[in-house]
Amino acid sequence: MSTRPVFGTSPAGSVEARDAIRSRAGVFDRWLLGRVVRRFRPARVRFRLWDGTEMSSSDAAPAGTIVFRERRALLDFARDPDLQFGEGYTAGRIEVNGDFVGVLEEGIRAGFARPIRTRRTRPHSTRSSRVNARRHYDVGNDFYALWLDREMLYTCAYFDPPDATLEEAQRAKMEYVCRKAGLSPGMAVVEAGCGWGALALFMARHYGVTVKAYNVSAEQTLWARRRAQEEGLADRVEFLEEDYRAIRGTFDAFISVGMLEHVGRENYSVLGEVIARCLTPQGRGLLHFIGRDRPEPLNSWMERRIFPGAYPPTLADVLEGVLEAGRLSAIDVENLRLHYAKTARAWRTRFEAALASVTARFGESFARAWHLYLAGSEAAFAAGSLQLFQIAFARSGMNGVPWTRAPLYAADGNG
Amino acid sequence: MSTRPVFGTSPAGSVEARDAIRSRAGVFDRWLLGRVVRRFRPARVRFRLWDGTEMSSSDAAPAGTIVFRERRALLDFARDPDLQFGEGYTAGRIEVNGDFVGVLEEGIRAGFARPIRTRRTRPHSTRSSRVNARRHYDVGNDFYALWLDREMLYTCAYFDPPDATLEEAQRAKMEYVCRKAGLSPGMAVVEAGCGWGALALFMARHYGVTVKAYNVSAEQTLWARRRAQEEGLADRVEFLEEDYRAIRGTFDAFISVGMLEHVGRENYSVLGEVIARCLTPQGRGLLHFIGRDRPEPLNSWMERRIFPGAYPPTLADVLEGVLEAGRLSAIDVENLRLHYAKTARAWRTRFEAALASVTARFGESFARAWHLYLAGSEAAFAAGSLQLFQIAFARSGMNGVPWTRAPLYAADGNG
Repeated sequence: MSTRPVFGTSPAGSVEARDAIRSRAGVFDRWLLGRVVRRFRPARVRFRLWDGTEMSSSDAAPAGTIVFRERRALLDFARDPDLQFGEGYTAGRIEVNGDFVGVLEEGIRAGFARPIRTRRTRPHSTRSSRVNARRHYDVGNDFYALWLDREMLYTCAYFDPPDATLEEAQRAKMEYVCRKAGLSPGMAVVEAGCGWGALALFMARHYGVTVKAYNVSAEQTLWARRRAQEEGLADRVEFLEEDYRAIRGTFDAFISVGMLEHVGRENYSVLGEVIARCLTPQGRGLLHFIGRDRPEPLNSWMERRIFPGAYPPTLADVLEGVLEAGRLSAIDVENLRLHYAKTARAWRTRFEAALASVTARFGESFARAWHLYLAGSEAAFAAGSLQLFQIAFARSGMNGVPWTRAPLYAADGNG
Repeated sequence: MSTRPVFGTSPAGSVEARDAIRSRAGVFDRWLLGRVVRRFRPARVRFRLWDGTEMSSSDAAPAGTIVFRERRALLDFARDPDLQFGEGYTAGRIEVNGDFVGVLEEGIRAGFARPIRTRRTRPHSTRSSRVNARRHYDVGNDFYALWLDREMLYTCAYFDPPDATLEEAQRAKMEYVCRKAGLSPGMAVVEAGCGWGALALFMARHYGVTVKAYNVSAEQTLWARRRAQEEGLADRVEFLEEDYRAIRGTFDAFISVGMLEHVGRENYSVLGEVIARCLTPQGRGLLHFIGRDRPEPLNSWMERRIFPGAYPPTLADVLEGVLEAGRLSAIDVENLRLHYAKTARAWRTRFEAALASVTARFGESFARAWHLYLAGSEAAFAAGSLQLFQIAFARSGMNGVPWTRAPLYAADGNG
C-alpha cells in the first residue's frame, strides 16, 4: 500500500497554499479534536490539524494520518463523521497520509462510518429505482472500463485460487453461480439486474441455456445488446431495459447478482412474489448481494453520493422478506466477504493507475469521491462491516435439490 | 414401504372386535368426513369410516388409507386434526393402511399437521428445560439403543455417499461438523447439548481437541461418562450435567448439534451472549438444528407427547436471535433436510424391527406413539415442513475464516 496520498499535496498545490494562511489551532480546536480521537479509540489512527497539531486514538503504530486541512473540515467531521468524512475528503479539506485503506478499516471497526442519525431513505418505485440506478450506472461505460475487468463485471469475484487475477476470479464467480443455480442445457433462465450482461452471455455460451436479462440502466442495456450481437448470442440472450417487477414467463432458474441492494426493503415481498410467479415447480435460484451481520443503514455519504437508495440487508431481512413471501426454502448460504475485499482492492488498484485520466475527464472531486468509495468498500469488507451473501434456494418442499454440495467443488462440476 | 399397518388389525384383535359393535355411519358422519376430505385436497389419501364408507381427497391413486375406527376418532380429528390425529393413532382409534409415511407426507403437504390454534408454549427456565429434556431423553438408554446407531447419535446424519449405512452416515456427520467448525489439534471445544457424547468423544479422538460437553439429561450424561472412561478419553472430555447457561471458560470452538430446538425463542439472545462470552477472538462455531422455512409452532401432538417445549426456528429467528445478540457473523449455512428424512427412515426401519420388544416393555400406546413420531418426522422432512440447518459462524469481522469451502469436500479435509 502506498504511504503517500494518491492525490497531490505538494507545497506548490493550491490547497497547500490555502493552508499557509490558516490560523493556528486554538483551545477549542484541540478540545474538539480530543473528542474525535476518543470516539475513534482504539483505532490505530493519527489525526493532524492544519497547523501540525497531532493526536492519536491508539498507542500502537498508526496505519496512517487523517489530516484536517482547515477548521471547517474538523467542525463538520466532529458533528457528523459518517457523512462529513466523505464530503471533506472529496473536497480536499481532509487528506489521508499513510495506508488509506488501513485508516478506513480502523475507523470502520471503531464505528465511525455508522450513521448517527436516521436519514430519509429514497423511495423505490419503478420510476425512482430507474433514477437511482442511472445516477450510478449511467456515469458512462468508458469510465467503468478503466478499472473493471474486461467483461465489466461490477460484483464480487470469486478468487479461487486466491492469487487468481481479477479476470480469472470474475470468470470463476460466473462458473460458481451457474453451479449453485444448477444450470443445465436447454433451461430457461431469468436474470434480474444484469449489469453489462457478462453473466447472461456466459450462461448461454457455457451452459447452453436461454436467458432473459433485466436491467433499468439504459447505458448498460445498450452495451449488453451490442455484445450479444457481436458474439452471436442475440437469439439466446434477450436484454430488456425493464425493472424486475416487469418479469413475465416461467423459468427453470432465477438469478440475481448485485441487484437486491437497490430493491429497497419495502419491496422484498414483491420480489419474493415475482420469483414465486416465474419459477417452475422444480426451479432453483440464486440471490447474490451485499449485506450486513446486523441491521444498519448504508454509510450516509455512500448513500448520498455513490449509491442513492441502496440498503445492504441482513440475511434475516432477505429470508423473511423475500423467501418467506415466495414460499421458498434456503438450501445453501455462503458469505464471501473477504472475496469482495479482494475484488474492491483490484478495482482500486486499477482505478489508481487510471487516476490521471479520470481526473482529467471528470474533475478532481469526482476522482477523489470514487477513490474513497473503492477504498472504503475494501475497508468495509475487510472490517466485517459489510458482507457478501449468496443464497441458493428452491420452492419449499422441492426434493430435486442436490444431495451434497461436493459437486460445486469438483473439477467438472458433476462430483 | 409396507402396504399393511405395522400394528396388528387382524379380525381377532380387540379393536376389531369393538369395531363390530359400532353403528353404521350416518348422514352427519358422512357430511363431516366430506369436510375433512375437502380440507385435505389435493392429498392422495383415502379415508374410511368404521362401517366401510370411503372418500378420497384426490382422484389420483392414494398413498394409503386413514381409517377412523370409531365415531369419536372422526369427531376429534375434524375438530383439531394436528393434535387429534396423533391422539387417535396412539389410542388405536385411527389406523393407517398402505404407505404410512406416504400418507403422512401427503397430509403434511396439505397442511393438516399445522397447529390450528395457538397453544400455551412451555417455559424454558433452567429447571423446566431440565424437566422437558428429561421427559424425552430419560425414557431409557436401552430404548434408544434399540433403534439408534451403535454410537447413539440422535441427530441428523450425513449420507455421503447416499447409500451409506446409518453408522457410516453418523460418522460422516461428525467428520463434517468438525470440518465446518475448523477443529485442529490442541483446541479447546465446548459442546452445548451433547446427547450420549458420541460427537465429543469423536472430536477428542480424531481431532486431538479437549472438550467440555454440557447436557441436562442425567441418563445421557452417565452413559457418556462411562464411555469416556472405557475409551480412555476421560482426561480430555468432560461431561457436565448442566444447562448451556452454565458454560464457563473460553473455547476455540462452540458446537451445538440438536439443542437449539429445545432452547426456546425467548432465550436465543442469552445463548448468543453465552457464545460471545466463551468464544476466543479467532474462535468459530456451528449450530445444527431442526428448523422451518416459515415461522410456525411445532405440530401440537409432537409438542404435547414427544418434545415438550420444542420449537423449530426459522433461519431468520436464529440469525436475529442468537447471532446478532452475540455479534456473530454467519459464514456458511446448509440445509440438510433430505438427509434427515433418510436418517428418520433408518430409525423407523430399526424401530419396526424392534417393535415386539418395544411393545412388550412399554405398552402398545407408547409403541404406536413413537412409531408415529418417527414416521411423521420422516414425512415432515420429505414434505419440506421441517428443515435441518447447519450454521457455521465466527465473530463479526474475524478474518481467519476459510478462503473457500472446497476443503470440506477434499479427501483429507485440507483442500
